Formats: sequence, C-alpha cells, structure tokens
Amino acid sequence: MENQNKVSLGGMDGLESREKEMKMANQRTAKSRELLVRLLAFVLTFAAAILLGVNKQTKVVPFQLTATLPPINVPVTAKWHYLSAFVYFVASNAIACSYAALSILLLFTSKGENNIFPKMIIILDTLMVALVFSSNGAATAIALMGYKGNSHVQWKEVCSVFGKFCDHGAVAIGLSQLGALAFLLLVLMSALRSNKRSSNY
Amino acid sequence: MENQNKVSLGGMDGLESREKEMKMANQRTAKSRELLVRLLAFVLTFAAAILLGVNKQTKVVPFQLTATLPPINVPVTAKWHYLSAFVYFVASNAIACSYAALSILLLFTSKGENNIFPKMIIILDTLMVALVFSSNGAATAIALMGYKGNSHVQWKEVCSVFGKFCDHGAVAIGLSQLGALAFLLLVLMSALRSNKRSSNY
Repeated sequence: MENQNKVSLGGMDGLESREKEMKMANQRTAKSRELLVRLLAFVLTFAAAILLGVNKQTKVVPFQLTATLPPINVPVTAKWHYLSAFVYFVASNAIACSYAALSILLLFTSKGENNIFPKMIIILDTLMVALVFSSNGAATAIALMGYKGNSHVQWKEVCSVFGKFCDHGAVAIGLSQLGALAFLLLVLMSALRSNKRSSNY
Repeated sequence: MENQNKVSLGGMDGLESREKEMKMANQRTAKSRELLVRLLAFVLTFAAAILLGVNKQTKVVPFQLTATLPPINVPVTAKWHYLSAFVYFVASNAIACSYAALSILLLFTSKGENNIFPKMIIILDTLMVALVFSSNGAATAIALMGYKGNSHVQWKEVCSVFGKFCDHGAVAIGLSQLGALAFLLLVLMSALRSNKRSSNY
C-alpha cells in the first residue's frame, strides 16, 4: 500500500515537473520571439534613420533671371534637414532604435517578481508605436507632395529634379513603416499574452 | 467545538464574500473608467472629422496675368479634399469614431468567459492608435507647411490668405490628437490591467 502511494506520488511529481518544463519551454519560445521582433524593430528604425540622415543630392538647375538674359546654371542641394517633417522622421527613428536596443538589454538582464521594467516596457512600446507612426505619417505626406505637387496651393513637385533623393526617402519611409509594425506587434504580444479581460468583467 | 467550527467557517464565508464584493466593485470602477475614455475618444475624433470635413473658405484673390494689364480678382476656395493628407485625416477620424461607438456597444453588451470580443478590442484599439497618430502626423506636416511654407522647395505659405480655414484645421488636429491620446490610454489600460509578464519570464 505504501509502495503504491509512493509510486502514485512519484507519478504526480513527474507530471508536475513535466508541466513545469513545458511552461518554461513556452516562456523561452515567447522570449525568443520577442527578442527577434525587438531586433527587427531596432534594425529597421536604425536603417531608416541612417538612410534619410545621410540622404543628400546636388543638382545643377538652370535659373532664368530675365527673359532677355540666358539662364544661369546654379547648383541646388536637397537635404533631409531642409524639411521639418524629415527632421521629425530622423529624430523619431533615432529615438525608437535607441529605445529598442535599450529595451533588449533591460528586459533580458532584469530578473525578479516585483520588477518594474516589464510595465515600463509596455508603456514605452506603446509610446513608440504612436511616435513612429506619427513621424511616418508626416514624412509620407511631405514625400507625396514632393512626388505629385498640388495645384490648389501651387506647390510644385520636386522629385523630377531630385529623383535619387526622393527614391532614398521612399525606401527610408518603407523601412520605418515596417519598424512601426514591429513595435505594434510587440504591444499586441504584451497585451494579448496575459489578457484576462473576459474573466475580469 | 462544532459551534466553534461553524463560527470560524461563517467568518471565512464572510471574508470571501467581502473580497468578492470588493473585486466586483473594482471591476465596475474599471469598466466605468474605460467607458469614459471610450466616450472621450468617440467625441474627440467625431468632432475632429466634422470640423475639418465642413471646413471651407472662399477668398477673392487678385491675379496678375501680364505686367501691362490690371490684376483680375478671382474667387479661390480652400477645401479639405484638395489635399490628400486632409482626406486621410478625415477618413481616419471617421473610422476611429465609428469604431469607438461600436466598441462601446460590443464591450458592454457581450458576456461570457470564452468571449472573443476583448481580444479583438485590444487589437483594434492598438490599430486605432497607429491610424490616428499616423493621420495626425500627415495633417500636421501639411498644415505646418501651409503656415510657414518652405523656401528650399519653393512652397509658399497659404495661411495668410486662408486664415479661417487654417485656424479651423489647427483646432481639428488638436482635437484629433487628444482623441489619439485617449486610444493610447485605452491600450495602456488593457495592457497593464492584467499584466503578469514579470512572473511569466
């Protein structure tokens, strides 16, 4: 009888340890997935900030001063910091990639039950979604205006002159948009991981 | 001895029911707080969409066709749908306020443990943060260009002519920004309410 009890207790212990192992394996998988998304967010926003930050194009443009004189060739340069929307874009992506790098360090080195970092990380992830989407919206609006212009406000398109600058800008905006989606995914992963809302209400 | 047990059991029952009551009271408070923030998000994005959607200004502007002829007075109208960033802004705020109204109905009428609505609500709240912040970024970039212009791309400011249109636009962007913050608060409330991340890792 005693032996039977021991066997059954042993079986219970085995089950518990297997459950514990499975739980730990799941946690490791979730952690690896989060690390991967954070790394992606870092790489994409870093690349976007650098690509627009070093973007520069000089073109020689003919200027007609008066109808009687021949046009003068003037070198004109396009730079990211000539437009405030692009300054906001580069600054936001620089902040976002610095934060992504820091969050990887903070999250994967901190331990303990009463740790404040996880809550801070959720708040900052959400702020990054707002920041990067907002700056992408601003940069896209100005880039589209540069591509198409607008006859109603008489703003002429400039991308036929600064084609390379515009193309690099478009790639930077695309990368940053993917980075913003990575931050969005991080917020969703955090919010859905431990969501017990339906039982709370 | 039996009476003592009954008394202590009765005490335990009382404690449990008091705990249950407190838990239910907390849930009611959280629910009211969420309802308030959702209503705010609805009102702000609705007002922003309407304010820019009905925004229109006609001004008589003198046009000089040739140097020898006197200027001709031409009526010029500023409308929100002349600029794609403003179209995006009105559409995003219309989507956000419709969703806010629908989410109030869905969340406060649905019951049950295995309900899919709470998870859907978290996902959609987060998408609204991305959508409204992105459209606010786009509208702000174009509005700032309208206020200040830019000499590098030779886009002239237009707000000295269409002052009323620009002022109404600025108020609409301000309201939408507050609406976006309300959605951000909803995501944070959801994510932090049941966050057990520190014990998960």
